[in-house]
Amino acid sequence: MTDTPQLHLFDEATRVTAGDSRWQGRTSPDYWAFVGPFGGVTAATVLRALIQHPQIQGDPLAVTVNYCAPIAEGPFDLDVRLVKANRSSQHWLVELSQGGTDPATLATAVFAERRPSWSHQPAPMPDTPPFDQVKRHPNTHVGWTKQYDFRFVDGPPDYGASATAGPFSSYSRLWLSDRKPRKLDCLSLLSMSDAFFPRVFQARSEVVPFGTVSLTTYFHVSREELATENITHVLATADAKLFNRSYHDQNSELWSPSGKLLATTTQIAYFKA
Amino acid sequence: MTDTPQLHLFDEATRVTAGDSRWQGRTSPDYWAFVGPFGGVTAATVLRALIQHPQIQGDPLAVTVNYCAPIAEGPFDLDVRLVKANRSSQHWLVELSQGGTDPATLATAVFAERRPSWSHQPAPMPDTPPFDQVKRHPNTHVGWTKQYDFRFVDGPPDYGASATAGPFSSYSRLWLSDRKPRKLDCLSLLSMSDAFFPRVFQARSEVVPFGTVSLTTYFHVSREELATENITHVLATADAKLFNRSYHDQNSELWSPSGKLLATTTQIAYFKA
Repeated sequence: MTDTPQLHLFDEATRVTAGDSRWQGRTSPDYWAFVGPFGGVTAATVLRALIQHPQIQGDPLAVTVNYCAPIAEGPFDLDVRLVKANRSSQHWLVELSQGGTDPATLATAVFAERRPSWSHQPAPMPDTPPFDQVKRHPNTHVGWTKQYDFRFVDGPPDYGASATAGPFSSYSRLWLSDRKPRKLDCLSLLSMSDAFFPRVFQARSEVVPFGTVSLTTYFHVSREELATENITHVLATADAKLFNRSYHDQNSELWSPSGKLLATTTQIAYFKA
Repeated sequence: MTDTPQLHLFDEATRVTAGDSRWQGRTSPDYWAFVGPFGGVTAATVLRALIQHPQIQGDPLAVTVNYCAPIAEGPFDLDVRLVKANRSSQHWLVELSQGGTDPATLATAVFAERRPSWSHQPAPMPDTPPFDQVKRHPNTHVGWTKQYDFRFVDGPPDYGASATAGPFSSYSRLWLSDRKPRKLDCLSLLSMSDAFFPRVFQARSEVVPFGTVSLTTYFHVSREELATENITHVLATADAKLFNRSYHDQNSELWSPSGKLLATTTQIAYFKA
């Protein structure tokens, strides 16, 4: 199913070329959002430039992406700089810009040797029926959302209710997969860490102007551990703690079907309501 | 009590001078940690350079600090760059270095106009006795910890138990204040967002090699709202979800006594165990 000779749309969308300190990419119509590319794919493109970099060592540990301005349709440059390296970790800075103007995206990434250690997972995996027993959400034919298969166990998007009756729960729990299944790697895991419907839509049961401002994702497994899972979907949770003064947070967990917490992620987003 | 003519030690420790794009600071022996300054004070020093910058607009919204290498005792430079600005937000990049070498700290910050909006706080404030009914933790006379007043309601540091009996809960809930009371502002709030005993010490009930690698804090109130609270202590929670392959996360909330969620923060840290 994942052995087709063509490149997966996700790999097309996150393709980068050349480069030592400067790389090139291009926005993809397949992963378009409101006013620019889906932020998850932008983050994954940055990460792809890093993991393909000749100097990279270790596994992605922490990625922060600041979305400074919309990215216009077309090509973009990625300025990639190794800020500091030591024996066990690397600190990277990536600036995405178009046509020599101010950066539209500013990202930092930490790579680290994931040496074996004491392991302990206090967070409990949410109780959930298996992926294939949950129905695929039908309303995902707009922009980037059509590239994902969303299977909601709790908190599906349903923006028909009156806003005056709320606020509604901002919590969702779902199985998340590439629409065309693709073996999960650190790139798609990072992209999925932004693949949630805005919490403000949930809490107000309506669509309002929205934009992610900053996203931080921590990887809790090495690339080798992730490859061993050999999966195409994750169990994801998303919630918000506070909506105030035009911004709200979102915090999420991404779980393997086998019960391993693969990544945690948080973001702060602008909304108008 | 906060009206003494001398500068508070925290303000001494986070002092910065001069500068348009380059600022200077100096490490403080009062906030020293294992192998360098306490990370919270480093973060606050970066933020102080920003809020004193002539071009700054809006309130701090998101700060990410990557601790790339230990900072040596003595002076340091802060290279401050406004990466992108628009009508309602600013994206900043700060590199802290010493003697012209590679950066020891790399930070990004988003400032934003906190315009009034719909407000909703789904997160419940943890049930806790008031600050003055909780006893101050006595064992805080080492390094930076002596600058804080820790009043644990749950999960105090207690590293006497045998590691073989664990793992123990990684959760703590406490009142947190500057030892010498100081009116809370965005600087001390950011510093407090790193002022937790390492979760791995809690979970293993022992002290092991530890270092924060990356810290992200979101501010959920404007500076004006924070000033209106007029407080010197916060209710703080801290927990971890996963310890694996030499790294673990920490996620925390910082609450005003009046029940407002002031900041949320997450970090990823190295440990050896």
